[in-house]
Amino acid sequence: MAYLNDNYLKLRAGYLFPEIARRVKAFCDANPEAAKRLIRCGIGDVTEPLPEAVREAMHKGVDDLGRRDTFHGYGPEQGYEWLRKAIAENDYRSRGLEVEADEIFVSDGSKCDTGNILDILGSQNRIAVTDPVYPVYVDTNVMAGHTGEANEAGAYAGLVYLEGNEANGFVPEIPKVPVDVAYLCFPNNPTGAVATREQLTAWVQYARANGTILLFDAAYEAYISDPSLPHSIYEIPGARECAIEFRSFSKNGGFTGVRCGFTVVPKSLMASTSSGEKRPLHPLWNRRMSTKFNGASYVVQRGAEAIYSPAGKEQVRALIEHYMGNARILRDAVAAKGLAVWGGENAPYIWVKTPHGITSWQMFDRMLNEANVVITPGSGFGSAGEGYFRISAFNSRANAEEVARRIAAIVW
Amino acid sequence: MAYLNDNYLKLRAGYLFPEIARRVKAFCDANPEAAKRLIRCGIGDVTEPLPEAVREAMHKGVDDLGRRDTFHGYGPEQGYEWLRKAIAENDYRSRGLEVEADEIFVSDGSKCDTGNILDILGSQNRIAVTDPVYPVYVDTNVMAGHTGEANEAGAYAGLVYLEGNEANGFVPEIPKVPVDVAYLCFPNNPTGAVATREQLTAWVQYARANGTILLFDAAYEAYISDPSLPHSIYEIPGARECAIEFRSFSKNGGFTGVRCGFTVVPKSLMASTSSGEKRPLHPLWNRRMSTKFNGASYVVQRGAEAIYSPAGKEQVRALIEHYMGNARILRDAVAAKGLAVWGGENAPYIWVKTPHGITSWQMFDRMLNEANVVITPGSGFGSAGEGYFRISAFNSRANAEEVARRIAAIVW
Repeated sequence: MAYLNDNYLKLRAGYLFPEIARRVKAFCDANPEAAKRLIRCGIGDVTEPLPEAVREAMHKGVDDLGRRDTFHGYGPEQGYEWLRKAIAENDYRSRGLEVEADEIFVSDGSKCDTGNILDILGSQNRIAVTDPVYPVYVDTNVMAGHTGEANEAGAYAGLVYLEGNEANGFVPEIPKVPVDVAYLCFPNNPTGAVATREQLTAWVQYARANGTILLFDAAYEAYISDPSLPHSIYEIPGARECAIEFRSFSKNGGFTGVRCGFTVVPKSLMASTSSGEKRPLHPLWNRRMSTKFNGASYVVQRGAEAIYSPAGKEQVRALIEHYMGNARILRDAVAAKGLAVWGGENAPYIWVKTPHGITSWQMFDRMLNEANVVITPGSGFGSAGEGYFRISAFNSRANAEEVARRIAAIVW
Repeated sequence: MAYLNDNYLKLRAGYLFPEIARRVKAFCDANPEAAKRLIRCGIGDVTEPLPEAVREAMHKGVDDLGRRDTFHGYGPEQGYEWLRKAIAENDYRSRGLEVEADEIFVSDGSKCDTGNILDILGSQNRIAVTDPVYPVYVDTNVMAGHTGEANEAGAYAGLVYLEGNEANGFVPEIPKVPVDVAYLCFPNNPTGAVATREQLTAWVQYARANGTILLFDAAYEAYISDPSLPHSIYEIPGARECAIEFRSFSKNGGFTGVRCGFTVVPKSLMASTSSGEKRPLHPLWNRRMSTKFNGASYVVQRGAEAIYSPAGKEQVRALIEHYMGNARILRDAVAAKGLAVWGGENAPYIWVKTPHGITSWQMFDRMLNEANVVITPGSGFGSAGEGYFRISAFNSRANAEEVARRIAAIVW
């Protein structure tokens, strides 16, 4: 008799975004007229065309596959060297950071990587996540059997939750107890908060002292405008000994549908066997990717490479400016209503306190029904997100302006 | 102190293909002249240009991403409905098989899926693999902690190995003991053997009787020429209650570098919780893919869709005919030398007994040094593969003919 993985049965309700999609579909089916004016600021999905430099490179990539002498079959599971080198040079070495090309593993996206990283970590680790949190970090730990059941607030036994709140500006304090693995995401999804150099330095010092591995999700680093804020965990001395960094082309190059990201596993990063021997993690991740992955699409990797071309860089910069322009408009609109607001300055997400203490899902339903705007309920990101909601700045300028007008018109 | 996954330390040597790549590179570095005439018949990687219909669709897909009104960001994690429908219609329903579009999960490749499927299965399952075997099935079970250590022959404690040999024509017998999960791959990689309808019927009956789940890898089904042989496990009555099927566009459409495949999880397929309650696996796989995957690239899915167009079908047929023409040439060349040979008739792999009882790696080294041809050592697929080697028919016609000439010239 074949057994299923019981841990899946611990998962509460649907993963947040499919659940939102379900509610939106029900609303649209019931209100076909209102559906026509629906504006989606829920899921953090880009809306603007893929940069021309990227498209040109992808067209060329497709053409390469059409000729025997330039055909590419199986590529290196870790990614093509030309892309790994472009990443190492542009994202790290040109900024004075020591990351080698062969420490970079190109994948089909950083959501996948942040889930798959658990493959190489032991099941005895004590794991910390922030709250609010990107649900993938939690759900993949539940699936892997690293937790007990969820309580009524949705918190799983066995995980250490680090609360982000108004007092700490949604940058949670370092845990008082030692944890073995900690997920950090800055600029943060969903709150838009960004950790300062001092805060990350404290994390690295804590990690070094406790043998903790930091899983640093920097998917939104391109949105940092304040030059004092770190883009990479490797800007912090000692991070090469304690941190894995996840990066994505989704939010800078608009690759949410193209699918490409990468993970940095420094060769100097060690973890312990169950018998207490220290071993590097790099060979384990390399083996994992060689065995359970077959490389990102050649055409996609050619597109990613073009992000680092002069034209690509300029086009990406224009995209970021566009979305951050939206963020300003949305942030101002919410603030003008007297609502407390965070984020939107170094991140494409605006994090807002609900009016009159209504719940996040009540706010979701009000915004859907009264403004025909889809937002994301904060409680979907964890119990500390209850009473807040997230507005995504990924939209056209016209839509962002229209959402601002509709927010202005709502009587709370 | 962070712990690593100790199970990775049980893995023996490198995964087969990286190991071959390492040896070939060493040979080429040491013999630059011979390197120029090297012909690769090792890894089963396609060599011919991507079909024109696929390239046209991918170009159009790239163009779609360049206009705001046709831009596609995050797609459904399960794959776009137009592709799932095309697969269900063309690969199943038009052949009288009951598979619904929403039972099909599009991914970035079937290697990934055959590894990832373990995510939703319990760790208490007794697992059977064939020997010889595609190494990914074994290695992913080792990584997941489903085995003990390997013995000297490379067999892992805790797995049930089903031996393919000359007596059974490399279609292993059904196990005498009940197993919970069994991996089957037909047409087989590496032996080229194909199970008959009667043999698969016996497997399905065994699985139904024992509650076994069959993981059926049909990546090479397009190479079946004998009309009596099943292309899909779902041609066998009752298979919807006991089988998951993996399919790939790598070997029909030449997608090894493009990356797309799919997995069929019938809604009627159940497995047991640890407390003995039966539950469908479909929602678990759906949850797995929604949480740990973000859909295959839009551009790639548009390419896959084109495989089902009239032009695409014709171009795929021509590719298959090309590679199977090579298979005939290679099979004849080996047989003419008096070597015992299997496969190459309904599969792109030729499975050959080494001469004079030399080992598989000795044969690999001889072919590399004397003929400058890369083959795959049979022992890389398991201890039952020792004394055999695999020749891949994925090559140009000129190369296949040249390999045949070099084989003819070798003095064994």
